[in-house]
Amino acid sequence: MSSPVKVGIIGMGTVGSGVAKILTENADRCTQRAGRSIEIVKAVVRDMSKSRAVELGDGVLTDDVRSVIDNPDIEIALQLMGGTDPARQVMLDLLAAGKDVVTANKALLCEHGPELFAKARELGRTIAFEAAVAGGIPIIAAVSQSMSGNQITSIQGILNGTCNFILTEMLKRTASYGDILAEAQELGYAEADPTMDVDGTDAAQKLVILCQLAFGKRVPLSEFPKQGIDSLDLADLKYASELGYAIKLLAGARLVDGALQMHVEPNLVRKHEALAQIDGALNIVALNGDAVGPTWYAGPGAGQMPTASAVMADLIDVVVGRAQLTFPLLDVFDEGSVVERIRPPAEITRRYYLRFQVDDRPHVLADITDILGRNEISIASVVQNESLDGSSTVPLVIMTHTTTEGQMRTADTEIAGLEAVKSPRIRLPVLD
Amino acid sequence: MSSPVKVGIIGMGTVGSGVAKILTENADRCTQRAGRSIEIVKAVVRDMSKSRAVELGDGVLTDDVRSVIDNPDIEIALQLMGGTDPARQVMLDLLAAGKDVVTANKALLCEHGPELFAKARELGRTIAFEAAVAGGIPIIAAVSQSMSGNQITSIQGILNGTCNFILTEMLKRTASYGDILAEAQELGYAEADPTMDVDGTDAAQKLVILCQLAFGKRVPLSEFPKQGIDSLDLADLKYASELGYAIKLLAGARLVDGALQMHVEPNLVRKHEALAQIDGALNIVALNGDAVGPTWYAGPGAGQMPTASAVMADLIDVVVGRAQLTFPLLDVFDEGSVVERIRPPAEITRRYYLRFQVDDRPHVLADITDILGRNEISIASVVQNESLDGSSTVPLVIMTHTTTEGQMRTADTEIAGLEAVKSPRIRLPVLD
Repeated sequence: MSSPVKVGIIGMGTVGSGVAKILTENADRCTQRAGRSIEIVKAVVRDMSKSRAVELGDGVLTDDVRSVIDNPDIEIALQLMGGTDPARQVMLDLLAAGKDVVTANKALLCEHGPELFAKARELGRTIAFEAAVAGGIPIIAAVSQSMSGNQITSIQGILNGTCNFILTEMLKRTASYGDILAEAQELGYAEADPTMDVDGTDAAQKLVILCQLAFGKRVPLSEFPKQGIDSLDLADLKYASELGYAIKLLAGARLVDGALQMHVEPNLVRKHEALAQIDGALNIVALNGDAVGPTWYAGPGAGQMPTASAVMADLIDVVVGRAQLTFPLLDVFDEGSVVERIRPPAEITRRYYLRFQVDDRPHVLADITDILGRNEISIASVVQNESLDGSSTVPLVIMTHTTTEGQMRTADTEIAGLEAVKSPRIRLPVLD
Repeated sequence: MSSPVKVGIIGMGTVGSGVAKILTENADRCTQRAGRSIEIVKAVVRDMSKSRAVELGDGVLTDDVRSVIDNPDIEIALQLMGGTDPARQVMLDLLAAGKDVVTANKALLCEHGPELFAKARELGRTIAFEAAVAGGIPIIAAVSQSMSGNQITSIQGILNGTCNFILTEMLKRTASYGDILAEAQELGYAEADPTMDVDGTDAAQKLVILCQLAFGKRVPLSEFPKQGIDSLDLADLKYASELGYAIKLLAGARLVDGALQMHVEPNLVRKHEALAQIDGALNIVALNGDAVGPTWYAGPGAGQMPTASAVMADLIDVVVGRAQLTFPLLDVFDEGSVVERIRPPAEITRRYYLRFQVDDRPHVLADITDILGRNEISIASVVQNESLDGSSTVPLVIMTHTTTEGQMRTADTEIAGLEAVKSPRIRLPVLD
């Protein structure tokens, strides 16, 4: 048996503690899977005085990140701190010091991936990041290894468990967005500041990473439409359900004739689809390959032990040496990409769900349908119920046939100009 | 760029042709993913006169398997012939000749896996077999790599697309088992001799391979209960549906206190479960790990291109060198297994669905419930409808609470002895 491989953990929060727990409580199993025993030599924390759930040896805990960077015995660093600063510099320092790095930091890879990947390749080092996307679901391994005989043609995923939890509970318990968000924060499913989750940023960062691997193309967040769940109303979930759909925050990418179209938006998804059936804090990714066809991967997309499970898979891959073979072949630079262009949002074609609050008087529906017609948008179905509460406005729900996002936006702007049309005006795409 | 890696394909049936199609039509992509170009040097067929969909170079097609075995330039053999004889000897010869082998042959690995794996290790060679289980779903990679930080605690899968297609269509179209089987044969979903599919053997072979990887234990087919779908009636699918369940042929394994219980049987699965929602020829595997929790993998479990996709993933893994690192660490020998014992079927506990055809006269229900009660089996629900067609017998459907398979068998035998109870007597487990 060869000597133990020495590992440093940077960041002993939820995920770091989970990894330490697996390594200490299941040491024999880890040794068997890795072919070598794995020793945590240093674990860097911010606050030395805080009590820890996992017992580490004397002198392992430190608040000095240099004790990992400058330790020549440490071969692998688990970089489990959040944010991009100082995470970016720490990663660069670790690579420069000759360490392979396992990370769960999606924001860092989304923003600085090309720089970090280039630096690692230049130095002959490896970055492994299974835990950065979809937590315990091995989607990075699927995209970068298991689908290697395929050109991936589409990715559709529920990549944010917080949003999925909120949407599921709102409908199940007939509750408002605000009430369920507050509860999710209490349960620890949502951060104290949930902005990055509910506005779609978190899902969009994960999508950027997946698209880099699947299509060899880095698309900045600013180049594709992103809409969160924060403007959704219980009424929309109910109308969609009556029409046979669930509403899910989907992060999607599709390759159409060399053009890549991406989006992060709440979508209406037919109830019988796998993507509609994943409830609560779970994640799912539907991956299409030109050889394999449709495949689905589902599981816990966040949480201590699911994320630790993904970090462990990467750590063992690095110890075994697989990650070092995979990393140089990853399709993470734009050269030679199958993507000829990014499809402008205006060209994306799909069906739409529209909800308007309108004055309860004659000719409103005629005015709206006239605008849609002039923009070549044909209507699949209309639901307008009577006002039951004596209110002077009523909701109007329209499902369109396939149209372009461009036509839809033009029509929407015109409709917004009608005096009889009030707020809110909701426009959601329907998944094909 | 290094020289091309030379590959021999043994068996140019459906899957072999699919692999050749990917390698010839997407050569650049394969080169990029593998880091080297891949050249098919020999392709062994049984019948040289048969026309082929894929154009191969002059002299590539041959009917002589020795032209692969004895060719020192060939580094990797794709062993895509079915059956165990001569497949076993061909594999041994390939390994002895210094070749790594990619195979899709589940029967071969189920029956001769330990011998073949031992021989490969002794010779320092690698066997890769993603395509042997669940076709295009990368379940071997998930179990052997992505879950490496976990002890897998349970596997439940729909591993036979033919059976799933038949069960789905029977209910959807209110058709008999025989009619749908005939149609599945016409569509190519079922073999001319479908016995191995419909009696559960195919699913059981795949389960044996998964359990070897997940639990380090080889359990022969004879040591766990196996029941196919050939005795199922449309009536059972309908009753189950009314009770809120789908019936699925599940291949399952669960580790309970060091005891491994395995089974291949049609199960009643609650409709909201992912396992119940996979219809048609698709496969799904639900994998539980002690760290990650529940995960699901779904996709096409058979067919030309999905299986070719899995073979290609393995081939590229071997070319890159990952498979050679993974193979020696696979948990495929019984030493050091987490499994302390195989749980005898009689000890397995679960709920049951029972259907009896009984005489339409007083006291029959009382006699049956008395037998169940004496065997400590309590009843959750009973459905007995009136005879509408003037028949002298009526169906009686009982859902039990949790009991042991042993108690259930004893009770079933006693019930069979009642004069009022006629054929068929159906007993199906309910998935927890």
